[in-house]
Amino acid sequence: MFIAEGSKIVLDFLKNGAKPYLLIASKTWINENAINNSEDIYTINNETNTKCRIIETEENIIKKCSALSTPTNILAVFRYSESKIENIENNLSIVLDNVQDPGNLGTIIRTAEWFGIKNIICSKGTVDVYNPKVIQATMGAVLGVNITYTDIKEIISKHASPEFPIYGTYMEGENLYTKKLSNKGFIVMGNEGKGISKEITRLITEKISIPNARPGTGIAESLNVAIACSIICSEFFRINSYI
Amino acid sequence: MFIAEGSKIVLDFLKNGAKPYLLIASKTWINENAINNSEDIYTINNETNTKCRIIETEENIIKKCSALSTPTNILAVFRYSESKIENIENNLSIVLDNVQDPGNLGTIIRTAEWFGIKNIICSKGTVDVYNPKVIQATMGAVLGVNITYTDIKEIISKHASPEFPIYGTYMEGENLYTKKLSNKGFIVMGNEGKGISKEITRLITEKISIPNARPGTGIAESLNVAIACSIICSEFFRINSYI
Repeated sequence: MFIAEGSKIVLDFLKNGAKPYLLIASKTWINENAINNSEDIYTINNETNTKCRIIETEENIIKKCSALSTPTNILAVFRYSESKIENIENNLSIVLDNVQDPGNLGTIIRTAEWFGIKNIICSKGTVDVYNPKVIQATMGAVLGVNITYTDIKEIISKHASPEFPIYGTYMEGENLYTKKLSNKGFIVMGNEGKGISKEITRLITEKISIPNARPGTGIAESLNVAIACSIICSEFFRINSYI
Repeated sequence: MFIAEGSKIVLDFLKNGAKPYLLIASKTWINENAINNSEDIYTINNETNTKCRIIETEENIIKKCSALSTPTNILAVFRYSESKIENIENNLSIVLDNVQDPGNLGTIIRTAEWFGIKNIICSKGTVDVYNPKVIQATMGAVLGVNITYTDIKEIISKHASPEFPIYGTYMEGENLYTKKLSNKGFIVMGNEGKGISKEITRLITEKISIPNARPGTGIAESLNVAIACSIICSEFFRINSYI
């Protein structure tokens, strides 16, 4: 199971088919969003009319359960539903090599879903997608992308071919904006501090780079991994949809 | 003054000309990075050979001063140096309308610096750039961009003209990838929850939008503001540098 907090995100999860195990909510939230059926079973007032168990409690109790620095009046426990990666061969998928920060993973999921990327393949060292901070940062998009944790070395080796490029971002890579980009393949993003590991670098067939406006004289030595990933997804989307 | 933490970021700040008021460091950090001159005055072992006062203390004391969840063995207090926005007329600048999250502001600064954007103009309700979480997220790039806090309504009204577009992101805006983009103007980014305020929306001359791969059927209703800003900066940079 996993936790999501805040009215908007909980309602978004319900709307998009997440299965609630339990909601913990204040009286105010319940009055505005649910109708009592019997005992602690309620129907949620939205398009899905989901039925679920709600524990009514005070906001200071919710605060004690919360992982947020500014807790809200609703916390939901959802049932985890395993997603299987699919149709890798004909699509672009994102591969994450030990991304550590929950906010980064959540934002990558949200952005990938926006650009229609269906699969995110995580190394076993990547932060857990069901970490509450990841869930919050996805804004519900976690339900729209297939996410798996596996041996990425193995899956990359299995799929790499001249028709299925393995893209990775490196300072010395080819200019993202002028390079020919495929409509299938893996886009590998590395760890926040270390980048793509040596072991995985050997499997990269196309090194790309996001140009710096002042090469050699700029201050930032890199972009945040979620930012780099979003710029790359945007460019692949542009090339494949509008060119 | 403002605080920066962690060896890499503190050394980056020193390298890029930040003026230290005081460093608080463990014996290990000092042994590896500084040479004692007299009493508590040290010379830092890097390109700049900055002289500064260092208080040697134990890591558990640094931990107590730290704003990070995983504190390191070095914390620096730098002197604030005011930056003035410059040459607005001939450049693209970013205008922030009440961006609240420190991580978002820091990441926007880091990305703006990467793409050579010189000015970031913040509404007075935007999170303080000297908030330690903002500073950490900039990775030093705060020294490479001019940042000011002002009445953004006034500055937008003053500069808007047919030759100086005011861009804002809206669901119903024109496709970022196919729209003609200028090499000067303001790119306005709004608050995380509310977007661009009504008052500022009236001043937007060019509404743009980042297309969604599955309009109407996708889950995420928007992109994170730092992600949206980076995709927009990337596209302006591509258009102005490679087309």
